[in-house]
Amino acid sequence: MSFSISKVATILALGVVAVSALSSNVQAQATGFPTAQESDPTVMGWMEGFPPAPDQRITNPDSNFFSFPRLRWSVCHLREFLPTEQVSRGLGAPVPFNYALDETIDDVTFLPIRGEEEMTWEESLFANYTDGILILHEGRIVYERYFGCLDEAGQHAAMSMTKSFSGILAEMMVAEGTLDDTALVQEIIPELEASAFGSATVRQVMDMTTAFEFSEDYGDPDAAIWVYNAAASPFPKPADYDGPEGYFEYLQTVGPDPDGIQHGDEFHYRTPNSDVLGWIISRVSGQEVTELLSDRIWSRMGAEQDAYMTVDGVGTPFAGGGLSAGLRDLGRFGQIMLNDGEWQGEQLIPAAAIESVVGGGNLDDFAAAGYADLAGGSYRGQFWIFNNDHGAYAARGVHGQTIYIDPTADMVIVRFSSFPIAFNSRIDPTSLPAYQAVAEHLMAQ
Amino acid sequence: MSFSISKVATILALGVVAVSALSSNVQAQATGFPTAQESDPTVMGWMEGFPPAPDQRITNPDSNFFSFPRLRWSVCHLREFLPTEQVSRGLGAPVPFNYALDETIDDVTFLPIRGEEEMTWEESLFANYTDGILILHEGRIVYERYFGCLDEAGQHAAMSMTKSFSGILAEMMVAEGTLDDTALVQEIIPELEASAFGSATVRQVMDMTTAFEFSEDYGDPDAAIWVYNAAASPFPKPADYDGPEGYFEYLQTVGPDPDGIQHGDEFHYRTPNSDVLGWIISRVSGQEVTELLSDRIWSRMGAEQDAYMTVDGVGTPFAGGGLSAGLRDLGRFGQIMLNDGEWQGEQLIPAAAIESVVGGGNLDDFAAAGYADLAGGSYRGQFWIFNNDHGAYAARGVHGQTIYIDPTADMVIVRFSSFPIAFNSRIDPTSLPAYQAVAEHLMAQ
Repeated sequence: MSFSISKVATILALGVVAVSALSSNVQAQATGFPTAQESDPTVMGWMEGFPPAPDQRITNPDSNFFSFPRLRWSVCHLREFLPTEQVSRGLGAPVPFNYALDETIDDVTFLPIRGEEEMTWEESLFANYTDGILILHEGRIVYERYFGCLDEAGQHAAMSMTKSFSGILAEMMVAEGTLDDTALVQEIIPELEASAFGSATVRQVMDMTTAFEFSEDYGDPDAAIWVYNAAASPFPKPADYDGPEGYFEYLQTVGPDPDGIQHGDEFHYRTPNSDVLGWIISRVSGQEVTELLSDRIWSRMGAEQDAYMTVDGVGTPFAGGGLSAGLRDLGRFGQIMLNDGEWQGEQLIPAAAIESVVGGGNLDDFAAAGYADLAGGSYRGQFWIFNNDHGAYAARGVHGQTIYIDPTADMVIVRFSSFPIAFNSRIDPTSLPAYQAVAEHLMAQ
Repeated sequence: MSFSISKVATILALGVVAVSALSSNVQAQATGFPTAQESDPTVMGWMEGFPPAPDQRITNPDSNFFSFPRLRWSVCHLREFLPTEQVSRGLGAPVPFNYALDETIDDVTFLPIRGEEEMTWEESLFANYTDGILILHEGRIVYERYFGCLDEAGQHAAMSMTKSFSGILAEMMVAEGTLDDTALVQEIIPELEASAFGSATVRQVMDMTTAFEFSEDYGDPDAAIWVYNAAASPFPKPADYDGPEGYFEYLQTVGPDPDGIQHGDEFHYRTPNSDVLGWIISRVSGQEVTELLSDRIWSRMGAEQDAYMTVDGVGTPFAGGGLSAGLRDLGRFGQIMLNDGEWQGEQLIPAAAIESVVGGGNLDDFAAAGYADLAGGSYRGQFWIFNNDHGAYAARGVHGQTIYIDPTADMVIVRFSSFPIAFNSRIDPTSLPAYQAVAEHLMAQ
């Protein structure tokens, strides 16, 4: 891999591109990294002192702020690098969770995928460079810990879990009849008529079964991924820059799949779909994604903290990966999903919106994408559906972010992490079986 | 005035420089601006639509985002242009104010300074391009209105009111014995030993009676104001940039007054003093100004909203002007000052800290600075002391920001504004007598 991580990181599109395209030698790099304890930002001393010593500074955009181990500090501090918009919690009192802590969870054991030795739950937290972990069972917090850069009053990058918020907002509109998921994108966003997206249906965008030209050949400076990244950067463009400005202009430049693949043929996990979806829900609602997320969810769930989203250079929130939020607030959202949308006596999310997600996407399309450790799963409404015995599904983001919802065990797990490499294929083997083991532990209580 | 407003605005040092240095022809420009109603951001349509039309975009840093009328949108959206740090309200329930609304305040009349016709309170709101106005009397809200870009859930730029927060934190440390205001700056910040600031006392910094070289000749590209502005910018520096990086490096480059003026000789309202003070209180406390402000004030006053501060390129909060906050939260702070530091049964700010401010600064020094409409006043601990009959004092920021505290009338007024030009000398004539008239009105109830 010769591409510059810092270049990717600069524009924060890191890890929001296809997971499957990455070569295995990146994954091999995981061995040999300093441990979670060794790379703890407080051990590293990043940004301490007034001013921080030059070799302890993490600044933007030339400081590799999103490469390990600096990543471990930066995931809690994105707003200090980038322009952002608030996702307001409103002005009322937060609604606290009840606690029923289970101290035996740390000792729950599981066998990692392809592993030969059992691992304890607590060991898995360090193996995955966990920054925050929350387990809700029957609506109460049974487990909650913070590490590294995070504490209960902090916000952590949600990365591509952002997509699931864009997705559920779209599913809500579909359920409420304000958005027709069979409509063509160009009927809602005429500006996209000439782009590949114009002829896709809203549902194909939501489920990432669109077809479009999107080279992730990082060695090619003209590859789409670089055009996308440059367009997305909120920083001043070079004087000779003549590419698109912002997510929406970029999307208009996207052409059809060069190999003739048609919409609906295949599932490809590609972030520009989420940007199209952000545009759609904004156009339909008349609200930015930040406002919509606040009005429909954040300000109604008794959130403890505002969340925020990064924006491009024309103020468009990054619907595919820009959210940062508090751990327990993501727990509230997960619990609402688990409750079929009901929250404190109110139907906060239409049950039909959640049913659409839980029902899952096309199994064959997903199988063809070759996610080995997610075999049998699917992708629907910007959520990952595991189709396991428990009917679990999740919001997921690179470097180990997850909201894992297990309806059978009446359990939600939220994890913020800063694993040294981005790809969940490296992280899942010590995560998914751990979640299942805790679910079984809780069900046996 | 030939300097580029956009260049100043780019690095957000606009208006944090000396007020007295400005030529009167700038003030003359105030006539002929569109009215408050005409320039209302919602009327102008700034940043509406997905995406906003090119001529309705306000982006950074090349869009004159801090020049009128764009200013009127930007004052509520600084975090969308610039990296920021949170000032956390904590996670508890906000403590609401009680209301005792007085609808007759709108009809209170006053004679503007140098005016010939009386004006009503309500007329003064439009004359001053008010974005948010709050009046507290005997601890209850008697008046509260929002205009333009602001609502009760929004945050507005506090501009140089930020200084008063840095100042009161320093006064608290002095009162508590952790900061000696007679100490030399170099004893606390050895890095400043070779700069002009090193030989000043902490008190001289707090009261802006330091002497140092600080040219505000905007026509001279080597003037200190440009060096300061470039250092403060959080954006990537040009490849050939070899100047200081961030507030703290800039302060180390500041030389003595070229005319031989000594510390203590004169009062000069100059923002770098507040940056020195921010450095001092951070070094003494081990906390960034944002953390300190949260720990000591914001998280203890039942605030409704987080506040935030802009940061430089190495993550240092702008102690001289970087704060944005909600209207009622500044009201809480003003009420605490009025209460001699007591708040909900707790001595949140030592009474001695407030006594130090209220006691005022050197009258002769202030008189020599020539603020015509503030005659008889002084400057102390980063607050403006009016020395009027009511013993009023204030935090003030350019474009009309104020927290006006009137102990005699048991009244606090908070105003956020976006007056077309920066200088309060243009704004005070229709503001200070209005505050006095409302105070007398409330006292007569």
